Amino acid sequence: MPVTLTSKFITIEGIEGVGKTTAVKFVQNYLIKHKQEFVLTREPGGTAVAEQIRQILLTPDGEETILPETELLLMFACRSQHVAKVILPALQAGKWVISDRFVDASYAYQGGGRQIEITQIEALDKWVVQGIQPHLTILLDAPAEIGLARAKNRGPHDRIEQEKMDFFERVRNVYLARAKKFPHRFCIIDATQSLDIVQDNLKINLDKLIADSQHGN
Amino acid sequence: MPVTLTSKFITIEGIEGVGKTTAVKFVQNYLIKHKQEFVLTREPGGTAVAEQIRQILLTPDGEETILPETELLLMFACRSQHVAKVILPALQAGKWVISDRFVDASYAYQGGGRQIEITQIEALDKWVVQGIQPHLTILLDAPAEIGLARAKNRGPHDRIEQEKMDFFERVRNVYLARAKKFPHRFCIIDATQSLDIVQDNLKINLDKLIADSQHGN
Repeated sequence: MPVTLTSKFITIEGIEGVGKTTAVKFVQNYLIKHKQEFVLTREPGGTAVAEQIRQILLTPDGEETILPETELLLMFACRSQHVAKVILPALQAGKWVISDRFVDASYAYQGGGRQIEITQIEALDKWVVQGIQPHLTILLDAPAEIGLARAKNRGPHDRIEQEKMDFFERVRNVYLARAKKFPHRFCIIDATQSLDIVQDNLKINLDKLIADSQHGN
Repeated sequence: MPVTLTSKFITIEGIEGVGKTTAVKFVQNYLIKHKQEFVLTREPGGTAVAEQIRQILLTPDGEETILPETELLLMFACRSQHVAKVILPALQAGKWVISDRFVDASYAYQGGGRQIEITQIEALDKWVVQGIQPHLTILLDAPAEIGLARAKNRGPHDRIEQEKMDFFERVRNVYLARAKKFPHRFCIIDATQSLDIVQDNLKINLDKLIADSQHGN
């Protein structure tokens, strides 16, 4: 179902420690300043049911490890609720949507990180997401080494954050490959730069999106 | 990965109210009597993680309805853990497995009941279950009308049990179609018969399975 409204769907992607939370807040404040109605959401999660699934996904493994296949299925179960109950209704009501992660994260984390075959992810993507694509995907990019060093200073790590450096390097590489494959919607921002420069970059992309939106594109 | 052991994998299927619980107990007692080691399990569930997902699946809808697609993904997420953590390890250790429901239930409930395209279920089946098939599937069959009338006398209904008659009639029809498609493993028992006759039928099928097992088939 194509959404032909002027509201826009923005996703923020990147590995741990690249400043996604700060970027999400910047986008949020930008939309407030520009008097755009929006919904702020995240994956995995975004609905009551999806947040319950998120708990299962992120709780560090006890005796029973969660298989990569299970992880992918749970991510898409969350996404199925998220698309139908939050993202589409918001866009159809003319609201903007800012999501902290979306389907690109499954390609990066479960495809790159967990090394699940991409055809399997594509099949679920096609079935569950039904072609809904962000208008703008901001990829905050940094080497895994730098991201992890920053993330280390935060509280206890969830199940996925506990992964090792090479896992996140694979995640990063898939994100970069996705950006190359979908240049019309991806914007890569070098997250090793100063916050000011990162935010200048964000602003340039958001200004362009607002302009597009005002021209009904 | 083919399991070439003499232990057997038995599944019990059927709509609500056909006597699955009683049949499971009969099979359990039969294996105890025949001194076979076994694992008794169920779907959705069977592992700690899968039981957590089961809670989400069976809790009656609050404000947020669970979509058919989400339901199917959650069922296969449970199954992914269940196959890898319970069913395969038990069979590989030479134990029998009795499961109250398995993948046929997804064809019946999500395919028949929720009317999800069968190709989607087949794709997940192929990916997650990897060809693991029960040696014997006991289908307890009764018209939805009779099953539901019996189930009505039990406590509060879960999310799926709350469905209507035509839902369960579609579930039943897919079960019967599966039995016709896989006659080598399915045994249909008319659940409207007296308990004695149902159990005689169960015994005949279990005797055959024990004999096969003793001949190393």
